[in-house]
Formats: sequence, structure tokens, C-alpha cells
Amino acid sequence: MTSHRRIEVVPVLGLPEFAAGDSVAAAVCRAAKILEGDVVAISQKAVSKAEGRLRRLVDVEPGDEARRLAAELDRDAREIELILSESAAVLRAERGTLITRTRHGFVCANAGIDGSNMPASGTVALLPEDPDGSARRIRAEIRERTGRKVGVIVTDSFGRAWRVGQSEVAIGCAGLEPLDDWRGRTDSAGRPLAATLIAIADQAAAASDLVRDKTSGTPVSIVRGLSNHVTAADGPGAAAIVRPEAEDLFL
Amino acid sequence: MTSHRRIEVVPVLGLPEFAAGDSVAAAVCRAAKILEGDVVAISQKAVSKAEGRLRRLVDVEPGDEARRLAAELDRDAREIELILSESAAVLRAERGTLITRTRHGFVCANAGIDGSNMPASGTVALLPEDPDGSARRIRAEIRERTGRKVGVIVTDSFGRAWRVGQSEVAIGCAGLEPLDDWRGRTDSAGRPLAATLIAIADQAAAASDLVRDKTSGTPVSIVRGLSNHVTAADGPGAAAIVRPEAEDLFL
Repeated sequence: MTSHRRIEVVPVLGLPEFAAGDSVAAAVCRAAKILEGDVVAISQKAVSKAEGRLRRLVDVEPGDEARRLAAELDRDAREIELILSESAAVLRAERGTLITRTRHGFVCANAGIDGSNMPASGTVALLPEDPDGSARRIRAEIRERTGRKVGVIVTDSFGRAWRVGQSEVAIGCAGLEPLDDWRGRTDSAGRPLAATLIAIADQAAAASDLVRDKTSGTPVSIVRGLSNHVTAADGPGAAAIVRPEAEDLFL
Repeated sequence: MTSHRRIEVVPVLGLPEFAAGDSVAAAVCRAAKILEGDVVAISQKAVSKAEGRLRRLVDVEPGDEARRLAAELDRDAREIELILSESAAVLRAERGTLITRTRHGFVCANAGIDGSNMPASGTVALLPEDPDGSARRIRAEIRERTGRKVGVIVTDSFGRAWRVGQSEVAIGCAGLEPLDDWRGRTDSAGRPLAATLIAIADQAAAASDLVRDKTSGTPVSIVRGLSNHVTAADGPGAAAIVRPEAEDLFL
């Protein structure tokens, strides 16, 4: 049960610029005091950098499909090539925007690839290969370094259908229930609840973003007070948040 | 600029069950200490009850379209009638689910109508007629009672395309920037930012939900630490979050 709880969101300041091979967990443990039950929210960009998921556009040779789409959208064909190589399906290619379903199953603009806050111009960051795996590894390392059981989410800013603006969501998750399942439970009068599957990990991701600064890069923040959703096991991860294609009304 | 900020989310405990004509603002001011720059997040259900937006199903006479859809979806035709009467367009009617665009422009299941946490069985709550107006009135009354400038959001749990689970979003907003506009700004290296329009009000709504209890009803929580997004004017409200039909790729 979730009542009488108080949540705190604290940015982790003083983190270095991450490069391939760096340990995000080690840097976070040095920069912040981690408490039992904390949820450590890490932006995808930091994880991608530490995992060497950067690509230089000069190294990319666009194929025919990428060239065709790039011409249609007035975009860089090499960037489109990378987006296609990270995607399972293209949902929309209109007005300069490419919405795809990534190999992980996430629906977002440009397969989550972007070039902001990169160490060098002409370089872009791909999403982590396996963001749930990234979250699990970072969680295990925090556990090892601090002895504390935490939840870890890897977050990214996604646009939404029908609503203006980007909101932070969880693309990777370990040790945190991604969904709080109230199905079968009833309200105070014994009637079924309308909202029955609460997107805890996504809401924690959104909360974590409220203390970030997009220009300087505050890639990590801590969401404190969700310990009743922090689990001993790594759990199903953000993969559980991907709506199965067969159940989706908007694919 | 948003760095070095710390956010706190606190539930407002001890609120009464609201009925038509009640002042939500008065109850919140009695139950909680409101500080300058707080964002007061109020669930749609509480606002709807206080505004008398409840409907008894026995009073509803379903029309032909409602009967047809109800048979197709295996649902109560009177509930479908209410949903249609609150909607500008039906987007999907499949597998028991009715996704519509409300008259306000929000895309959600059942036009936001539901029967959980109602004072009586067979009664449902419609969304407020004008949730931005509700937020403005509550804000003005909190100002009057406490002398404090706050932001107010009216929130509801929406499902999302492509992602499992409901997340809380802002359907009404006053005195809080609904969107933080970073367009034209650049990262630390002078390159354009990818995420440029941050859905502050929706992220605050999501954060506010993390301290709620769906069964007992914790309809109000306070998000503290967003004062740099709290504005002197009421501002454009959540209407600004509705993506214009002509720009939407998924309508």
C-alpha cells in the first residue's frame, strides 16, 4: 500500500562526462550518498556513452531506404541509416519526423538516437543495446559498492501521441516494479478500480526529470521514498512496459 | 534554469469526501500547509465531485450509436452514451475498449469517465467541464485564503499508446508552465538539444501520483520545488498540451 508516503527527488551533482568503459555506478556512488530503497534514475545518454554506444556519422554508409527517407524528410541520410538499423518497424515518416519501433519494442522518434550533449560534433548516441541489462549491471555494482538494495531505471525523453512535449520514461529498469498491479483490487466501497496498472517506473522517470538541467547535463537523480516498490529480485524490467503488438490499438 | 533543485512530493491527508458545491481549495488549505511556489495536484475525481459532474446511470437514455457500440464492446449502453456525449470523436472501439477524443481534445479511454471511488453504485464521474477553469478557480481561492502564489494541476490517469499501464497527466493547469520550452537553446557544446519542450505539468502530475493510494483515495498531493515554473499569471493551461489535430501523427 502506498499511502502516507513522501517522495524526494535529488539531482546527483558533480558527475564526470562519461566515456566508453567508464562505470556509471562507481561515479554515482562517489558523487552521492545512496540509501537503502533509493531509486537511481540515469539518463540513457550517460549509459550509452559509458557503454560505447556512440557512432560517428562519417563512419556510416546510408543504404537505399535511408537515402529515400532522408530525401523525403529533408534529413541526414547517415542518421536515418542508423535509425533504421536500430528499428524493427517504421510507424510514421512525415514532416521531418521519423517515428519507429525500436528493436526493444519502444515507439519513439528517431529510435531514440540524438546528437545533443555529445563529446564531439557529428557523433550521435544510440540507445543501450539492452537497457534492462544495463540497469541490472548498474544495480549490482551499486549493491556491491554500498551494500544497499536500490532500484535502477534508465530513462529517456519520449514524445507522446496526442500530447505536446516530451516526458521522461523508463527504457530500462531493475529492482523496481515497473507496474503496480491493482487489478482485482477494489475501491473503499468495494467497486473495481478504473486505473489498475500504474506505470510506477515511468512515473518515477518523469519525477526524476524535474530536477534535471538539459543543457549542463544532470544525467542522474535519485528518487527517494519508493522503497515499497523496490524489490529483492531484478524483476521483469522495462520490457514489461512494452505493450505487446497484438494488444496495441495504435500500431 | 533548473539545476540544483530538489523536489518533494507530499500527500495531503485527511481530506473529506467531496460533494457538489464543496470547495476543494478550502479543504486543502485546512488540511495542509501550503507554501509559496507549491504545485497543488488534485485528482480529477475530487474536482468532478465538487463540481457536481456525477451522473447516475439510471438517468441516462442510450441512443442508437451507444446501443450499437455497447453491443459490439459488451458494455453498458448508458455508460457508452455518456462517453459519446463527452467526446468529439471515437478513435478506437475494440476489445471492450473505447478510446475517444474528448471535447477538451484529450485522447483517453472512456472519455475519462469512470465509476470507481464513487459515493454510490451506478454513479460515474465525468471529467470537469473545463479543467483549466477549475484549476484557475482553485488557484485563486488558495491565493485568497493563504496569500501564497501556487500552481494548480488537475490530474487524471491516462493509458498510453504502445506502453502498458496508466500514468497521471495534467488535464487542467493554472499558474504552472505546462511546457518548458528549450527550443533554440543549445547544449554545453553549443549544439541543438533533442528534447526541447519538456512536459513539466505532466511530469509533475506523474510525480504527484507516486504518493497516492488508489483505494483510500488520496486525491491531493503537493509537489514542492518547482517554484521556478510557477508563474504570476494563470498561463495557457493544459489546453497547451493538447497536440493540434493537424500536427498529430496518430489521430
